[in-house]
Amino acid sequence: MIEVEAKAHVNDFNSVLKKLNEIGAEEVKTEHQKDTYFNNLEYRDFEKSDEALRIRNTALNDGTSQIILTYKGPKLDDISKTRKEIEVSVEDAKNTGLILESLGFKPAANVEKERTTYLFEEFIISLDNVHKVGNFVEIEKGMVEGEDFKEAIDKIFEIYKKLGIEEGFERRSYLELMGVYKS
Amino acid sequence: MIEVEAKAHVNDFNSVLKKLNEIGAEEVKTEHQKDTYFNNLEYRDFEKSDEALRIRNTALNDGTSQIILTYKGPKLDDISKTRKEIEVSVEDAKNTGLILESLGFKPAANVEKERTTYLFEEFIISLDNVHKVGNFVEIEKGMVEGEDFKEAIDKIFEIYKKLGIEEGFERRSYLELMGVYKS
Repeated sequence: MIEVEAKAHVNDFNSVLKKLNEIGAEEVKTEHQKDTYFNNLEYRDFEKSDEALRIRNTALNDGTSQIILTYKGPKLDDISKTRKEIEVSVEDAKNTGLILESLGFKPAANVEKERTTYLFEEFIISLDNVHKVGNFVEIEKGMVEGEDFKEAIDKIFEIYKKLGIEEGFERRSYLELMGVYKS
Repeated sequence: MIEVEAKAHVNDFNSVLKKLNEIGAEEVKTEHQKDTYFNNLEYRDFEKSDEALRIRNTALNDGTSQIILTYKGPKLDDISKTRKEIEVSVEDAKNTGLILESLGFKPAANVEKERTTYLFEEFIISLDNVHKVGNFVEIEKGMVEGEDFKEAIDKIFEIYKKLGIEEGFERRSYLELMGVYKS
């Protein structure tokens, strides 16, 4: 599926939280996520190909974890972070990582964050406190491949406006922002 | 972990079933398994590297499926099929396959079989009716990496003897036997 998505850096969440309340966005959950990104420099350098391969470990309230393996394709336009995304839930982070490593994909970086998720219309709004990087507001919508996603991108930027966010838009990945990737 | 394993071709299962009963092996289950093997000719040809990457879809009695992603390393000796094996249960065969394909690993062949599993001491004995290939008896034991697996291999061949199987041992994979791989 296509993940229509944009991201903006914000200094703090206080004014955003107030606006989320004003527009009636529904708070869903707060989660702690640990992401491990993999890369394969000898076969396909994802920094150059603008792809990503990630194992996400989300701590759940019942003490267990949800583990998701995700592939992200290159970004599809020049203004958002919209891209193809394929996800599958896996039983175990360790063995999934060992299989990727056996195939030549090595752990390249870890990203850790607290994410609070809101729903507004058909959009998911995430307030991310990314360790060592900063605070970000992501707005996204999952769409079927082939659907026209331009309208959804326009709506995403309208929602940013409603949240008082008109600058700080960031197309670089957290890996780039952390300096793991150069550009 | 290390999968200590051997495989033998048999013409029919009748005499094996009688011997399994005589030695007191415990019948566990019969399952229908559909395996899809992946390969990546431009990066790592698993036929040459003697590795395997597989999605196994096992139909369960309750109508659901169990999906397992497996990586197998090269064979570790000259007499058995013993090799490193890493498995992880995944939620969905389709998306797992799409992720592998996005990484350049394409479906190379399908193998379908009925497998009846027996337990005998610490060994798993499988009677496999492999579609378009034939009948095989596999005997295996999972061991921790670093453990000495030579004794287990000796025991496996003793069990074959007890089952009346003294020839037909087969180190080639089902893909080789099906002619998908040349050798």
